[in-house]
Amino acid sequence: MEAQRVKIALIGFGTVGSGLVKILQDNAEHILHKTSLQLELAHVVDKDLNRPRPVKLPKGLLHNDLERVLADKQVTVAVELVGGTTTAGEITIKLLRAGKDVVTANKALLAERGREIFETARQCGRCVAFEGSCCGGLPVVGAIRKGLAANKISAMYGIVNGTCNYILTEMSKKGKEYAEALQEAQQRGYAESDPMLDVTGTDSAHKLTILAALAFGEEVDFNSIEVQGIDKVQLADIRFGWEMGYAMKLLAIAEQSQKGLSLRVHPSFITQEAPLAQVSGPFNAISIFGDAVGHTSYYGQGAGMMPTASAVVADIIEVAQGNALRCFAATPGLGRPGKSARICPAEEINSRFYIRLSLVDQPGVFAQVGKILGDRAISISSCLQHEGESPDCVPVVFMTHPARKGDVDSALKELAQLEVSKAKPVCIPIVTPPEN
Amino acid sequence: MEAQRVKIALIGFGTVGSGLVKILQDNAEHILHKTSLQLELAHVVDKDLNRPRPVKLPKGLLHNDLERVLADKQVTVAVELVGGTTTAGEITIKLLRAGKDVVTANKALLAERGREIFETARQCGRCVAFEGSCCGGLPVVGAIRKGLAANKISAMYGIVNGTCNYILTEMSKKGKEYAEALQEAQQRGYAESDPMLDVTGTDSAHKLTILAALAFGEEVDFNSIEVQGIDKVQLADIRFGWEMGYAMKLLAIAEQSQKGLSLRVHPSFITQEAPLAQVSGPFNAISIFGDAVGHTSYYGQGAGMMPTASAVVADIIEVAQGNALRCFAATPGLGRPGKSARICPAEEINSRFYIRLSLVDQPGVFAQVGKILGDRAISISSCLQHEGESPDCVPVVFMTHPARKGDVDSALKELAQLEVSKAKPVCIPIVTPPEN
Repeated sequence: MEAQRVKIALIGFGTVGSGLVKILQDNAEHILHKTSLQLELAHVVDKDLNRPRPVKLPKGLLHNDLERVLADKQVTVAVELVGGTTTAGEITIKLLRAGKDVVTANKALLAERGREIFETARQCGRCVAFEGSCCGGLPVVGAIRKGLAANKISAMYGIVNGTCNYILTEMSKKGKEYAEALQEAQQRGYAESDPMLDVTGTDSAHKLTILAALAFGEEVDFNSIEVQGIDKVQLADIRFGWEMGYAMKLLAIAEQSQKGLSLRVHPSFITQEAPLAQVSGPFNAISIFGDAVGHTSYYGQGAGMMPTASAVVADIIEVAQGNALRCFAATPGLGRPGKSARICPAEEINSRFYIRLSLVDQPGVFAQVGKILGDRAISISSCLQHEGESPDCVPVVFMTHPARKGDVDSALKELAQLEVSKAKPVCIPIVTPPEN
Repeated sequence: MEAQRVKIALIGFGTVGSGLVKILQDNAEHILHKTSLQLELAHVVDKDLNRPRPVKLPKGLLHNDLERVLADKQVTVAVELVGGTTTAGEITIKLLRAGKDVVTANKALLAERGREIFETARQCGRCVAFEGSCCGGLPVVGAIRKGLAANKISAMYGIVNGTCNYILTEMSKKGKEYAEALQEAQQRGYAESDPMLDVTGTDSAHKLTILAALAFGEEVDFNSIEVQGIDKVQLADIRFGWEMGYAMKLLAIAEQSQKGLSLRVHPSFITQEAPLAQVSGPFNAISIFGDAVGHTSYYGQGAGMMPTASAVVADIIEVAQGNALRCFAATPGLGRPGKSARICPAEEINSRFYIRLSLVDQPGVFAQVGKILGDRAISISSCLQHEGESPDCVPVVFMTHPARKGDVDSALKELAQLEVSKAKPVCIPIVTPPEN
């Protein structure tokens, strides 16, 4: 088969951009052998021309003039690795209008301005490819769109932010406090110097927006996702949960039920035997449940220079082979007119819950608590109170059977108002994926 | 986007064929929504027209005349689910020559007659799609070919036969003997009534042939794979290994080293913390290591009516969108002229080993064993002998540091000839995937 030359423009020469350059330099021959494509960088555009980078470019390749890319008819694929949602959005739209297919790893852009970007692509007869936007090198976008295309997907549970998973792993396994674990994540380069997007759960919600649109074939509104991060997690709850057989993970969750699609990101307890509980450190994993295929799960490095660049190159290949355009054109939920997802109201979610109360140790307290829960048909599946705590304020942990979230919220409100309650109750959902 | 009608012929109306019919009946609208493809069964061909099946077909669809399919120009995609390597091969070649793209889940056919099938497809300008041939619904063929295309792959470790994994799980967790666990696997429908292809490792080797060709971009000769099944595994070794921190799995292994590509299937010990050690029952999983992406891993149901049918439908979609043909045409190692893999000779493999000897309990025995190992620079990393065994024949277990397999084989030969050795030594490789 004759080799096909593909001229590529890279916009944004940062960490992942450097990884992309490295792969194109080191593995060009290998990629040519495996795909018959000769991938060639024709432009590298960045406003900063002088910053030291881990890779060297041939003279003349790096410049700061996007117009040159737009005007270069030989460039058919442009890679947007600028980051952020403003400049990156304008650049992406310009590239599409100039007739380029765009590969991007920018989850914030696609989650927050996806409709505009995708509609522009359709109007221009071009496509946007974004394997690198979710879970770095883990080819989960392809798995959902293609490998599982025959399935009605009922649920997805993902550990999709490596920073948060690293922090929770350190807290769980080494008993570190949140602040210490966060600092370590920053020192190791997992967390940004401003880690807010990660620890507040926003980054996970960005990825969930994209993955859910693909999985359910419906447009998903980023703002409809309930998001809670790990920044308020207390070591005490990780310990109590662990003692009761559960590991804490920040999960991005999509569940289809009769009441609609529930999309949420929150710290969650999962049984220690669950495959997701074994995912530690900065790794990512997603469990997906389809009606034909049952349970499949995907594990790998969800971020970083080389894993993300690996996904970007995979997209460039799909674009160059023409597969990405056909697939994009046919995919609903990406700027194609269609129904928006019917969202399950938060209070209608059915889940088990971990509830920690801080109670005065005196007779009759359990009866008061039991009544509040029982009145709402919230049934307790297990309970834990240690001896030897100060009688003024004893932590008591309850695990419930499945209950309606609205009922639990109302119980928590009443529990907080009890005179014997000495601190705000802590409530963490226990997530139970379907049996296989 | 306008819907595209796709007329499909199914050849072989058995278990997976019934699963395919079920998906096309139940999920047609869903697939249309997600892909703009209207998938329609135009023919179902089987020599047995009367056997009861779990799905119902419209009148006239089922017949036994392949010629009608070959002559039907509206049929562009044919699905071969006949099984076996003779009739299935002839049918596949006829279908390709009649201008149909072929989707198959037949790993034996592709592993043993792949070159002929793939070359025919190329000559006819058609393609063969085979996601269902490896690990059922788990989209690992797509992950290797597309998601990881940018990577030089250094190693793959797969639990790719659910029957064997079920048997080993029952032996490990419940202390069952091999024969009992096998019988149970048959009763549960995991194993065929003739389970030889599974338990001898042949089925795993079939899958390894296909996956390695894709991963390394080189033609792989099925007969070059060293295969050992689980049919000789003894419960005693599973127990000793577990006690020393290792789980036994039947692994299909591909490792690239300076001495060439090592391809092998054998019972293996892996550390209990490894993600693959957590894979139990009939599930499959594959860990793949790429130079850019690092470690990624894929988990799911590797066989069965619905999971395999899920993969078959994914392939039909890829074929109908035209992606499969482009991808097939560009992929080396599938009947495209190119280099064959340089195979690492078995004796040159470097591995750790578990060795169990049955020794007379008398002074000087350890010295004799130690000398035989030491003479070949085989270093012991741990050792286990329980008290209270019969002095006539004591099981003694050694775990080695990495050693050359040829040296270990020669040591085993000499150990077997020792007068104090009362049974043939047992030797099981300890597999150590790369860090990360």
